[in-house]
Amino acid sequence: MPFDTLIHNAVLITCNPSFDLIRRGWIGVSGGRIDDLGPEPEDWQRPAAHAAIDARGGIVMPGLVNTHTHLPMTLFRGLADDLPLAAWLQQHIFPAERAAVNPESVRWGSLLACAEMVLSGTTTCCDGYFHEDDVAQAVQAAGLRAVLAQGVIDHPAPGVPDPAQNLIVARRFCRQWLNRAETIRPSVFCHSPYTCSRETLVHAKQLCRDFGLLFQVHAAETRWEADHIRSTTGATPIGYLDRAGVLDERTLLAHSVWVDDADIAIIAERGAGISHNPESNMKLASGVAPVARMLAAGICVGLGSDGCASNNDMDLFYGMDIAAKLQKAVRGDPTVLPAPAALRMATIGGARALGLDHQIGSLEPGKQADLIVIDTRVPHLTPMHHPASAVVYAAKGSDVHTVMVGGRLLMRNRQLQTLDIEEIMFHVKRLTAGIASRRV
Amino acid sequence: MPFDTLIHNAVLITCNPSFDLIRRGWIGVSGGRIDDLGPEPEDWQRPAAHAAIDARGGIVMPGLVNTHTHLPMTLFRGLADDLPLAAWLQQHIFPAERAAVNPESVRWGSLLACAEMVLSGTTTCCDGYFHEDDVAQAVQAAGLRAVLAQGVIDHPAPGVPDPAQNLIVARRFCRQWLNRAETIRPSVFCHSPYTCSRETLVHAKQLCRDFGLLFQVHAAETRWEADHIRSTTGATPIGYLDRAGVLDERTLLAHSVWVDDADIAIIAERGAGISHNPESNMKLASGVAPVARMLAAGICVGLGSDGCASNNDMDLFYGMDIAAKLQKAVRGDPTVLPAPAALRMATIGGARALGLDHQIGSLEPGKQADLIVIDTRVPHLTPMHHPASAVVYAAKGSDVHTVMVGGRLLMRNRQLQTLDIEEIMFHVKRLTAGIASRRV
Repeated sequence: MPFDTLIHNAVLITCNPSFDLIRRGWIGVSGGRIDDLGPEPEDWQRPAAHAAIDARGGIVMPGLVNTHTHLPMTLFRGLADDLPLAAWLQQHIFPAERAAVNPESVRWGSLLACAEMVLSGTTTCCDGYFHEDDVAQAVQAAGLRAVLAQGVIDHPAPGVPDPAQNLIVARRFCRQWLNRAETIRPSVFCHSPYTCSRETLVHAKQLCRDFGLLFQVHAAETRWEADHIRSTTGATPIGYLDRAGVLDERTLLAHSVWVDDADIAIIAERGAGISHNPESNMKLASGVAPVARMLAAGICVGLGSDGCASNNDMDLFYGMDIAAKLQKAVRGDPTVLPAPAALRMATIGGARALGLDHQIGSLEPGKQADLIVIDTRVPHLTPMHHPASAVVYAAKGSDVHTVMVGGRLLMRNRQLQTLDIEEIMFHVKRLTAGIASRRV
Repeated sequence: MPFDTLIHNAVLITCNPSFDLIRRGWIGVSGGRIDDLGPEPEDWQRPAAHAAIDARGGIVMPGLVNTHTHLPMTLFRGLADDLPLAAWLQQHIFPAERAAVNPESVRWGSLLACAEMVLSGTTTCCDGYFHEDDVAQAVQAAGLRAVLAQGVIDHPAPGVPDPAQNLIVARRFCRQWLNRAETIRPSVFCHSPYTCSRETLVHAKQLCRDFGLLFQVHAAETRWEADHIRSTTGATPIGYLDRAGVLDERTLLAHSVWVDDADIAIIAERGAGISHNPESNMKLASGVAPVARMLAAGICVGLGSDGCASNNDMDLFYGMDIAAKLQKAVRGDPTVLPAPAALRMATIGGARALGLDHQIGSLEPGKQADLIVIDTRVPHLTPMHHPASAVVYAAKGSDVHTVMVGGRLLMRNRQLQTLDIEEIMFHVKRLTAGIASRRV
């Protein structure tokens, strides 16, 4: 049987458990999955395939997994920077959300984020926002794989003016998307332990348990939050969430900067996953998550970009590079978080954190064909002594040449196949014109 | 008189003293200099010009200034990562230098670095290495502006097997290049206060004074160095260099991570410049330079990439982004080093640190036409509420579309005009094949 697609003449970074590297290899894709892969010895005979992609000596690796995003916040990219968190939120982001967030802007903002992700090699994202049905339609149109969560907060929110309705809206979203698209899993995102009551957290987690879905929450992001939760509950944010019974292997904790050894032990014990967002944490001066210690404790850590209001872009190649360098800088140890560990975090680690590692995160036969081709014939990837180092410390999102999700090409030769980027940028500009001047 | 070149339909980030932003403007270039610039009101009449570049609404700004590089070290990009500094140097970099550094490899490695710089919007660099005459020929062929220094170290070095000859070689290089090319200024680079004797430092500085040149030295890069200098001299590295009399407004200190308040006061008093290399300092876990405090003290700080063996690329857009985020993270204050300050550091700040601010670093009439055009019609720069934020926090080197140095186009529509990149990559691959496997 010929493959649907054969990718050949590639350096394969498999991100499989033994982190195998194949210096010159091929992958056969059929029925949306990786059918087989292997090296190309001298006497290699090219297998039959309906379509072939010559990687031209470039790197083929699993698509990147962005474990924490707020896709529509591309609308607010660079709206307000270099401000204290409270002023940033209260005087800029919240007013902008009130003024500009609606189903139409959510849809175009999400499409913009999808374009950005495909163009920089991300094939799976995990989102939490409002009007999530519109986010989901955008992601489905783009063809990306995603875990998408309706946001839950005990305040009036875009599309949910009455907080008493927040879990009803979330439940409706989960029901709608439970079996609607093979590439999309619904989820629930509680904003935080300080903006959701214990009751809300518990009910949201129960909703996730009812459907077998991922429960997400921003947790221990800032020192202010840690102090606030301690003063109101006597516990750390992680300890408080644990006492509420919402931590298990289907819980994803975003940020988790302010965690102590006991918190790390709890997270490891419960099997919860972490989304590490170094760029957002640095830009907002939230702190530095102890991810090297978390990894040593056996916690599953994925990489996230956070929303574009606090980063300000979604290029996870930047994210890998900064994550690896930041741990070294704060630990004073250049051996911490080496390139392969950063690469795992952005691929199989993220897949595990989302509960999708049986489907994605590595190049292994039987897994979904979610993969990217990196063009290495560029000055900044020359010479290439070690491919994992090249990916983490030198490659850019713009080096990604071809992107495939479930065997479907979303980008080929830098050309988006599913999205009309000119139309998307036109509408985003139209919908955001004047926001900056309307700020407080 | 028609301009030689007119650039129009641009967002101008001038980086002039009042950091003026022109939302829609033009620049006229003649005789290699910026002749005039201004806004394009509704009734604007396009001035006559021999050639015109439509920036198509993109950003035009001064070319970036890389204040600290070792250009030929592109040869060792990613050769050895995630290692302690001593093992990295002794077991990998020094053996690789002994094996592979010669005039031919220095030339091709430098050309590769030049291609990388042009492709990511750098128009001026400041280098220190060995076989610097070959570096200079490469930089001249590329058409970049540069301060280029023969390295001085009291050990055998590539091309200088006898350390007793190091200052003689440096003096010869300075004489050769003193008036050879308008775009190239020679300089002397003493490796460090722990690899150069006090006598060598003093004589090298005198050599620079004789010719009116910039004196460079790695200083206070690591804790080990700070401890070592204190134990051998009783002073901090900065205090020691000051007592040796080598600090003045024509001295550039690379790194300066381990500096205390007294050191900062000395640097400010002497008027010496700093090259801040956040990516290299993070990757080698050297520490974090207190650049926000240095800037507050009135010290002139430029941005550097360091060599590609410790970064691992030369994209200063990454560098600006990381510099701004790193200061916020370590200071716990998101208002520190805002986007305009990072942008100044990478342009006019770097120009000042190199003593070239009368010529470059800002878009002002009379200055050299060293400028770049950024294509902003891409998803990650949409919307663009604030151009300086977009440049620092979202733009990538790959968004740079057109590069001009002294009125000459080095890149147009992403096409290099002076360098044959395929030929350069071919030779670098040829010259570095097998280095990785030869390592200890």
